[in-house]
Amino acid sequence: MDELGRKTPGDFKSAEKFPLVLVLDNIRSMMNIGSVFRTADAFLLKQIVLCGITAQPPHREIHKTALGATESMDWVYFSSTTEALQQLKQQGYVVIALEQTTQSISLKEFTPEKGKKYALVFGNEVKGVDEKVLELCDLSIEIPQFGTKHSFNISVTAGIAIWDFFSKLSS
Amino acid sequence: MDELGRKTPGDFKSAEKFPLVLVLDNIRSMMNIGSVFRTADAFLLKQIVLCGITAQPPHREIHKTALGATESMDWVYFSSTTEALQQLKQQGYVVIALEQTTQSISLKEFTPEKGKKYALVFGNEVKGVDEKVLELCDLSIEIPQFGTKHSFNISVTAGIAIWDFFSKLSS
Repeated sequence: MDELGRKTPGDFKSAEKFPLVLVLDNIRSMMNIGSVFRTADAFLLKQIVLCGITAQPPHREIHKTALGATESMDWVYFSSTTEALQQLKQQGYVVIALEQTTQSISLKEFTPEKGKKYALVFGNEVKGVDEKVLELCDLSIEIPQFGTKHSFNISVTAGIAIWDFFSKLSS
Repeated sequence: MDELGRKTPGDFKSAEKFPLVLVLDNIRSMMNIGSVFRTADAFLLKQIVLCGITAQPPHREIHKTALGATESMDWVYFSSTTEALQQLKQQGYVVIALEQTTQSISLKEFTPEKGKKYALVFGNEVKGVDEKVLELCDLSIEIPQFGTKHSFNISVTAGIAIWDFFSKLSS
C-alpha cells in the first residue's frame, strides 16, 4: 500500500479519466513536454495529443521532467495538428486554444459545462497556436496577464488551465 | 504604445501589486526559478524571496525561462529560509507552505481573505519544504493529485497556486 495513494500505471489505465485532452501543437522544449505529462498524470487526464515537431516519448529529455508519467498517460501522435483537431471534433470534443487573440475570452470568465468533453490546444513557445489551427478551434481562452511579459511558460499555462477546468468542473 | 498593454519595467515598479509573496526554499533548478519569475511578473506579485541554495539573478540559466522578468520583479535573498519567514510574519504575512502534510488542506477548499497578505512557500524539488520551515508556516496547502506521481514541477505548482489565489481574490 502506498501511503500517498499513488496509482500504479495499471490502476491508472483502468481508472475513470477527467474528460480533458491536451493537444501540443509543435512544442519545441522537451522539458515542457515532460512537465505537461506529469501534470496530466496528476489530474488523470484522458489523453495527450502530440503534433508536428512535438517530440514523442520515450526520450531522455522528456523523462527528466515527466518522471515516469509517460508510462501512465495515454498519448497519440499526429504529424498534422489540423488533422488531430478534425478527429477530436468528430469525436464530439469542444476544441479550445489557449491563446491571446482578438476574440479570446479570459479563463476567469469561462465556465466549462459538465458532461462535455474538452480538448485544450497549446501552441509553440515562440509562434503560439498556428493560424490554421486557430481557425478550427471553437474558441480561444487567454490567461489574464498584467506584467512586462505577455506569455507564460507552456507547462505553466497547461497547469493553470487544467487546474481551472478541474476546480470548476468538480465544484 | 504596446498593443498587448505590456508594462515597461518602470511601469511595473510603480504599479499596485497583488498582495502575494513567493518564498523559494532551496530550489535547485534554475529553469524553475526563471519560470516562477515569469509567472510572478504576469500577475504583478509583490516579491520573490530566494532562500538557501536558490540561485540569484542575473544568471544565464535563470534568464532562459525568466526572459527578462528578473528586471521587473522585486526580489530579495536570505541564506536562511526560517529567518525570511520570521521577517514576513513580523510584517503581517500569513505564511502558507505548498506541501502535502498530514495536516495540509486542499487548495480547492482554501479561500484567501481580501485585505490579508500571503506568502507562499515552495520547497526543494526532491526534499520538499524543510521540516523547520513547515513549523513556522501558518498552514499547509496541497494541490489534489490522483495519478501515479505525487508531485508537480515546482513552477507548475507555483502557477496553479498563484492563479487560484488570483481568481479567488479578484472574484
